[in-house]
Amino acid sequence: MNDQWYMQRALDLAATMNGQTTPNPMVGAVIVKDGSIIGTGAHMRAGEDHAEVHALKMAADRAAGATMYVSLEPCHHHGRTGPCTEKIRAAGIARVVVATKDLNGRGIESLRDANINVDVGVLEDQAVKLNEAFFHYMQTGKPFVTVKTASTLNGEMTTPKQVSKWITGEAARQEVHELRHMHDAILVGVGTVLEDDPALTTRLEVEGRHPLRLVLDRSLRTPMDAQLITDGEAPTWIFTEVSREDPKATQLEKNGVKIISMPTVTPNAVLKELGHAEIQTVLLEGGKKMIDAFIAEHEVQRYISYIGPKLFSKNGAVDLEVEDVRMVGEDVKVTVTNKRGDK
Amino acid sequence: MNDQWYMQRALDLAATMNGQTTPNPMVGAVIVKDGSIIGTGAHMRAGEDHAEVHALKMAADRAAGATMYVSLEPCHHHGRTGPCTEKIRAAGIARVVVATKDLNGRGIESLRDANINVDVGVLEDQAVKLNEAFFHYMQTGKPFVTVKTASTLNGEMTTPKQVSKWITGEAARQEVHELRHMHDAILVGVGTVLEDDPALTTRLEVEGRHPLRLVLDRSLRTPMDAQLITDGEAPTWIFTEVSREDPKATQLEKNGVKIISMPTVTPNAVLKELGHAEIQTVLLEGGKKMIDAFIAEHEVQRYISYIGPKLFSKNGAVDLEVEDVRMVGEDVKVTVTNKRGDK
Repeated sequence: MNDQWYMQRALDLAATMNGQTTPNPMVGAVIVKDGSIIGTGAHMRAGEDHAEVHALKMAADRAAGATMYVSLEPCHHHGRTGPCTEKIRAAGIARVVVATKDLNGRGIESLRDANINVDVGVLEDQAVKLNEAFFHYMQTGKPFVTVKTASTLNGEMTTPKQVSKWITGEAARQEVHELRHMHDAILVGVGTVLEDDPALTTRLEVEGRHPLRLVLDRSLRTPMDAQLITDGEAPTWIFTEVSREDPKATQLEKNGVKIISMPTVTPNAVLKELGHAEIQTVLLEGGKKMIDAFIAEHEVQRYISYIGPKLFSKNGAVDLEVEDVRMVGEDVKVTVTNKRGDK
Repeated sequence: MNDQWYMQRALDLAATMNGQTTPNPMVGAVIVKDGSIIGTGAHMRAGEDHAEVHALKMAADRAAGATMYVSLEPCHHHGRTGPCTEKIRAAGIARVVVATKDLNGRGIESLRDANINVDVGVLEDQAVKLNEAFFHYMQTGKPFVTVKTASTLNGEMTTPKQVSKWITGEAARQEVHELRHMHDAILVGVGTVLEDDPALTTRLEVEGRHPLRLVLDRSLRTPMDAQLITDGEAPTWIFTEVSREDPKATQLEKNGVKIISMPTVTPNAVLKELGHAEIQTVLLEGGKKMIDAFIAEHEVQRYISYIGPKLFSKNGAVDLEVEDVRMVGEDVKVTVTNKRGDK
């Protein structure tokens, strides 16, 4: 048992809440006294108790003289729930171990002013990674953008007419629903709506969060009978260059769609608008044109590529299987070959 | 120690010769007596001794009563070097363990007729894999085709003008030279010759084999000053629909190029022609149009994709780093993200 070991527990607790704390960061806390954990907590939902408060409540009177491990600098501001620093002090915590500082946070300073021992930087890389979207949002005012694509090994993202509509298998498609659950919003170009009429909802075995559905649609071509207009499963916003007074815009708004009209629909303009709405994470699912526009403006922070061991041509598909995947220097090497038994 | 253990040694010996035995298969042999290895051998080069003969020579008189492990059924035909079965019998080998049968081979039958104990199928999968190109060639009369591509995660195979010409890093580029060493021939479309003027030679720290260089060039557009015409490093063959009597064809032939004229240059026609020339392995390096033509005709047996953690757009490149690579069901998932320290 050492600082790293307890901090890892706090980080694990925090990570459990991935997707449900927005716009707040994920935070976990563990209180330790005399070699035993006497309190644990994680922040679960904006507006509810912070991790430190849950842990302090669990520890109750025993917190006096204990050490608290917390994955992010405790807050010192009177926000939705009051400053954690004050509660830590009042409980008599003797030492606080912090994984990483908050941007513009004053919690560490304030704890030290109250003569509490504070150590900072235990498992910091992990803590920064855990809340990278939160930090990105705080620094840029724009959401963290993750692109998700599914393609064949020869780079095709659309299936030839005569083969299955799926490029990837069931396991990969399931993961995409987990990704959706962890994002505030999901974004597609109108081309994807016109071609695939996707629902863009989270469909998991247990209930997940539906992200906000966003469509970039310059000339408002989204059909009135598109699933994401009619199904009522989650809110839908459309970014367009058409005026909100336009009859189609009015009609869409009557159907519950939010129309955001701007002079030019660019990735940067859309992301700024989303930042104002406290959207911290966006999953960009296509199409290729939309993704390329975000890449060109350097507005992609993460890119997840699912690669099916198939080769598509206009004449059809060849199914292969993955023989080897590994890193070669900084690059990835994927080798696919004929399935056993095939010629 | 068991049959598997000794067969693994034979297979390892065989694999060492990857690239240098063509048009023969890779074969390794180990002779064991009283718990000790008394002879080892591998086939090194067409026209030279087979693996069994090397091992028998090493074991000399001690071979009597011993067990031989050999990765491929011993030959029974009077080829370039005489039948191995005869030499095994003459040396007094008591038992032969064979990893896999040869196609149309009669060696096992002949050994059994000579009252030698024969077991077949030890590490057979590995043995079949090792010589998959040889077996493919024997079954189809056409070479085994491996495609090699280098692309960015967003599927771009060519670099924007203002960035480095390399999509992948030094380690991946080095591996490509190893791949070339292991192939009889390397094939590109004339588009690649016109754009990149590649040498298509094997450039390794220690000397490697240069593959035969093949260009598919319907209307004979290969420039007379292309590297693979002028450098004399390795033979170059051009498949074309232009007649060999054409002045350019004549001029190319004067420069040492072999012109193969056919009514229609298709992947299948080219591969059949190469099969007749005993070419067993072809590395197809591009361009995309050429690769797509081979995929469309189902003439690709293996596809190796090097993926650089970069995103290219017409505006330039974004350099990222690989965060995670793993299998999700039958698919590959590659996640790239901003380099540490970047925003």
